[in-house]
Amino acid sequence: MSVLNPAVDQTICAPLPVLGRDVVVPLANGGEVAYAALDYAASAPALQRVWDDVAGYAPYYGSVHRGAGYLSQLSTDLFEQSRATVAEFLGCRPGDQLVFTRSTTDSLNLLAAVLPPGTRVFVFETEHHAALLPWRGAEVTYLDAPRTPGEAVGTLERALADRTPYGPALVCVTGASNVTGELWPVRELAAAAHAHGARIVLDAAQLAPHRPVDIGELDVDYVAFSGHKLYAPFGAGVLAGRADWLRAAEPYLAGGGASKQVARRADGGLDVEWHTTAARHEAGSPNVIGAYAIASACRALTEAGFGPLVAREQALVCRVLSALARIPQVKVLSLFGERAERVGVVSFVVDGWDSSHFAAALSARYGIGVRDGLFCAHPLVRTLLGAEPDSAGECGASESEPGERSLSAVRVSFGVGTPDEHVERFLGAVAALVGDGPGPLLAEGGR
Amino acid sequence: MSVLNPAVDQTICAPLPVLGRDVVVPLANGGEVAYAALDYAASAPALQRVWDDVAGYAPYYGSVHRGAGYLSQLSTDLFEQSRATVAEFLGCRPGDQLVFTRSTTDSLNLLAAVLPPGTRVFVFETEHHAALLPWRGAEVTYLDAPRTPGEAVGTLERALADRTPYGPALVCVTGASNVTGELWPVRELAAAAHAHGARIVLDAAQLAPHRPVDIGELDVDYVAFSGHKLYAPFGAGVLAGRADWLRAAEPYLAGGGASKQVARRADGGLDVEWHTTAARHEAGSPNVIGAYAIASACRALTEAGFGPLVAREQALVCRVLSALARIPQVKVLSLFGERAERVGVVSFVVDGWDSSHFAAALSARYGIGVRDGLFCAHPLVRTLLGAEPDSAGECGASESEPGERSLSAVRVSFGVGTPDEHVERFLGAVAALVGDGPGPLLAEGGR
Repeated sequence: MSVLNPAVDQTICAPLPVLGRDVVVPLANGGEVAYAALDYAASAPALQRVWDDVAGYAPYYGSVHRGAGYLSQLSTDLFEQSRATVAEFLGCRPGDQLVFTRSTTDSLNLLAAVLPPGTRVFVFETEHHAALLPWRGAEVTYLDAPRTPGEAVGTLERALADRTPYGPALVCVTGASNVTGELWPVRELAAAAHAHGARIVLDAAQLAPHRPVDIGELDVDYVAFSGHKLYAPFGAGVLAGRADWLRAAEPYLAGGGASKQVARRADGGLDVEWHTTAARHEAGSPNVIGAYAIASACRALTEAGFGPLVAREQALVCRVLSALARIPQVKVLSLFGERAERVGVVSFVVDGWDSSHFAAALSARYGIGVRDGLFCAHPLVRTLLGAEPDSAGECGASESEPGERSLSAVRVSFGVGTPDEHVERFLGAVAALVGDGPGPLLAEGGR
Repeated sequence: MSVLNPAVDQTICAPLPVLGRDVVVPLANGGEVAYAALDYAASAPALQRVWDDVAGYAPYYGSVHRGAGYLSQLSTDLFEQSRATVAEFLGCRPGDQLVFTRSTTDSLNLLAAVLPPGTRVFVFETEHHAALLPWRGAEVTYLDAPRTPGEAVGTLERALADRTPYGPALVCVTGASNVTGELWPVRELAAAAHAHGARIVLDAAQLAPHRPVDIGELDVDYVAFSGHKLYAPFGAGVLAGRADWLRAAEPYLAGGGASKQVARRADGGLDVEWHTTAARHEAGSPNVIGAYAIASACRALTEAGFGPLVAREQALVCRVLSALARIPQVKVLSLFGERAERVGVVSFVVDGWDSSHFAAALSARYGIGVRDGLFCAHPLVRTLLGAEPDSAGECGASESEPGERSLSAVRVSFGVGTPDEHVERFLGAVAALVGDGPGPLLAEGGR
């Protein structure tokens, strides 16, 4: 039932060089330490290779699709080559379109905007808000959290079969949970969707940085992901997939670049002819640096090879899970159970600790950056914590009153740039903080 | 009637250093030359200062609003400080909101999305498509091209006074035309709008890179502009202004960051509480590098001083206009006539030349990058060229058949990074090409 099962080359490669690997941060005790970035699931550091490519291009930056000069031509070529590179990275099929957006959130909002009228959307309550919330013009069926990948497929099949009317439908599903890191059975869910006349979009924000994503092999209709989680944090994202809905819909943004011809009518109004290519939804000057950065990351990951990258990451995941399992006060969050396959994303709670204080202590005492809160996946975290639906908790940094234990968890996440030392420091810090307890921290170094 | 009349310090400063100033490009004759970027009105090169700031920050990049680690806190501070810096640059009033978008186009689409129901939009046909087209949910009145700034004010006043019903209204107007560079009487148009119970948004995409824009002094309700024209090409733009419509409307993008709390309801649906700050319309991880780059550009322009920058640019504008006026085959496009005040944007046509061939010759023979076409302002260019409304012409690069003269113009544009030599080379090239005529070029070097 595993979503992806690459032929893993068991050679474990070295971490890929990323920016910030030499950054030193202050500690609450007056000392300092090299920063351990363990919040990749929110935003990953840029690959050094991506930065070098962007820095190499920056002097050649010019207007895209809009100028006659050499640098404009070069920039236009670079933008369209970037589109082709990313399409190849995703295994796009002939006829698929690839639209550069600002983020996964933007990509899914774009898809929501191009749904044919009457399309019903099916989404598990376990999704990130970016996948839960954009479907504002559509009827949405929220599916209860499944406890196995097989249950996910069964739940979806029943919901699709029972829909009334049996009209157009879209399923939105994550490839890897941003809270638990667990892989979802994308191929099986896609088969279920198609068997019931529905389309499916893969939210690959958490999957693409860790595993190969092949739109054809998974047989999904659309894929969305963000540059900033794929080691390319320059304000761009991607929606790729079937062209028909994209071509048929009104442009997502109205403006230059999307418009082919505009003319006043005799009655004073405007006649507008829109492009039918990806440009239809890319009005305004394209973010060529953002697109090029994503393409550079795709090239870097492909060249390093997902085989060794996955092998290395899995070794780190195993190390984290086995070490945390030996600390009785730590409870790791999981939807699918201990044997579920995960990317490098692990969330947990610590007995006796408010998660925000624990995360603050990791930062202040050990120079480790993690995230605490509900991870923009409130229903999922409430389900995982067994909480009532109306429990407190905000998206973004948690804001509990002193002494009040908020509903939240701590998330540690890592990727291709993470050295072993960061993970070992984190595990040592968790053990030490659990041993110390929260009391002294709040007096001395908590935020 | 001038829109802006800064107390000009007549000291002319040196060009500000920009990226690409040493880039060498090939010529059709086999030689090469330093590139002359004269397409600032499409996308300007990055200020060296902006690049240095981005490069300095990049190793410290972290998740914004989402992490407990030191770099996340630093990045969050940097993002919010950038918002404050840009708000100060724009002279925002207490209570104004400033939303980071992807571009001017995106900013105006955002404003269109938050219009109260029933709002009628008034826009001159002379606007860029980014200002003409976004108002898709609203009734739009397109106003005929005025031939003086005073006529613009009179036309708007009459249209607003005559509107039926006399309900909520928004006026959208450019600060400086992206085709002619001419300044529009923004303060007077704002006064007219307010006198008739309307709001006004200033499209400052072409104005902000060249003149100070003070939202309070101009008394406009909203300002929109793009980073990539303001020497900060990292995929971000700005919408700033009155908070009430922004707060009252549905979020522009639905997703994490915009949502404060999300919970399943007993009936299986979702309850969502949205933020009421700028975050409401900034769902997804913010483009912190893009926002910081804009803030850096604002600081750099403020420190250099608009007085000397404007004085220098005006000297270049005068030089271009007076030199082109001496070439009888060249016709400079103007809506408001010879005495109109302009930023560094000049469009023209050349007798006997197809504009796309002329622009290609400037590139191939002289290494000069300009733009040709209709500049995403089709109705304006048709009006300026005296063409019929259904004449051919596409947004983006023009695509005329060989031998067929397309409806288009050539645009030269420059800004704070332009050295005198680029302008002198351009003027010499125009004179030489006009003398040679188009024949030989098409045989030897045209694209």
